[in-house]
Amino acid sequence: MPKLSETNKAYIAGFLDGDGCIMYQLIRRKDYRYGFEIRASIVFYQKEQNKKCLARLKNLLGKGYLRERKDGMVEYTIVGLEPVIKILKLLEPYCRLKKDHIRTAKRINKLLEGEFNLKRFIKASELVDRFQILNYSKKRRNTSKILKDYLKRHKLYPRND
Amino acid sequence: MPKLSETNKAYIAGFLDGDGCIMYQLIRRKDYRYGFEIRASIVFYQKEQNKKCLARLKNLLGKGYLRERKDGMVEYTIVGLEPVIKILKLLEPYCRLKKDHIRTAKRINKLLEGEFNLKRFIKASELVDRFQILNYSKKRRNTSKILKDYLKRHKLYPRND
Repeated sequence: MPKLSETNKAYIAGFLDGDGCIMYQLIRRKDYRYGFEIRASIVFYQKEQNKKCLARLKNLLGKGYLRERKDGMVEYTIVGLEPVIKILKLLEPYCRLKKDHIRTAKRINKLLEGEFNLKRFIKASELVDRFQILNYSKKRRNTSKILKDYLKRHKLYPRND
Repeated sequence: MPKLSETNKAYIAGFLDGDGCIMYQLIRRKDYRYGFEIRASIVFYQKEQNKKCLARLKNLLGKGYLRERKDGMVEYTIVGLEPVIKILKLLEPYCRLKKDHIRTAKRINKLLEGEFNLKRFIKASELVDRFQILNYSKKRRNTSKILKDYLKRHKLYPRND
C-alpha cells in the first residue's frame, strides 16, 4: 500500500464516515469445508459524475476496484480481510462514526489470524452479526446461528472439551 | 472561529465531499428593496444515531445549529454568506468533489463584498443559478431570470450606462 500523508488519511476517514460502508459478512460457500467464509469489504458510493474522485481514492489506497452500476452510481470496493484491516488501521485515528465498526473488525481479525481454528471462527461469526446492527442492515443475511446450525447438521460443531 | 488543525480540516472536507451539501439560493424577500436575498448554507445530514458526530463538527466549526427532522435524520446547518465562505476557504485545499462549488462561492462572495451594488447582485444571482446544476437540484427554485423579471416589473432594472 502506498504511504499516505496524515491529511490524506483524515480526508479518507471523513469521506468514509460521510458516505462509506464497512461490512463483514458470512458468505455461503458450498465448496468450503465449514460451509461459510467471512468476507470483509469497504465500499464508497458516488454518482457517476464523481467517478474521478473515487478513482483518486483507489489510487491513494492502491487496492480494490471501481464498478459502474446500472442505476447511475459508481462503487469503489475493497474486498478481503487483509487489505480491509490494513486500511481500517490507517484510518482509525481519524474516523469518528465508524469507530465501533473498526473496533469490531479488529477483534474479528485477531480471531482469524494465524492457522484456521473452528472455535475462533465461530466466535468471529458472532462478531460479524454485530455489523448488521452497526449498519442498520435490513436485508436478511447469514448469521452466526445459521453457521452453527450448519455445523451441527454436518456433525462439525466442536465439542466443549 | 476556533483554530482547526490541518487533519481536522481534511477530515471535515472528506465528510463534506461524502455527505454534505453547499447551497447558494435566491430567496424571495417581500420586505427587501430588490425582492430577493442570496442565501448561503452548508448542510451535513446524518441518521439520528450519529448526532454526536455532527455535534462534534459544530464544536469544531463553532457556527450553525443542529436540527432533528421528523424522518429520523439530523441536520447540521451553517447559514450566512460570511460564515459559509470562511469555512469553505478553510476546507478548500482538501475538498475534491466540491471544488467547483467553492470556486463559484468565492466568485459570488467577491461580487457581494463591500457596499451593495445592484449590477453586481444580478451577476451574483447568475452564478447562484450554477448551484442548481452543481447540486443536480430537481426542485424548482428562484433563478436569476426571476430576479431580473421582478426588477423589470418594478422598474428597478439597471440601465446600461
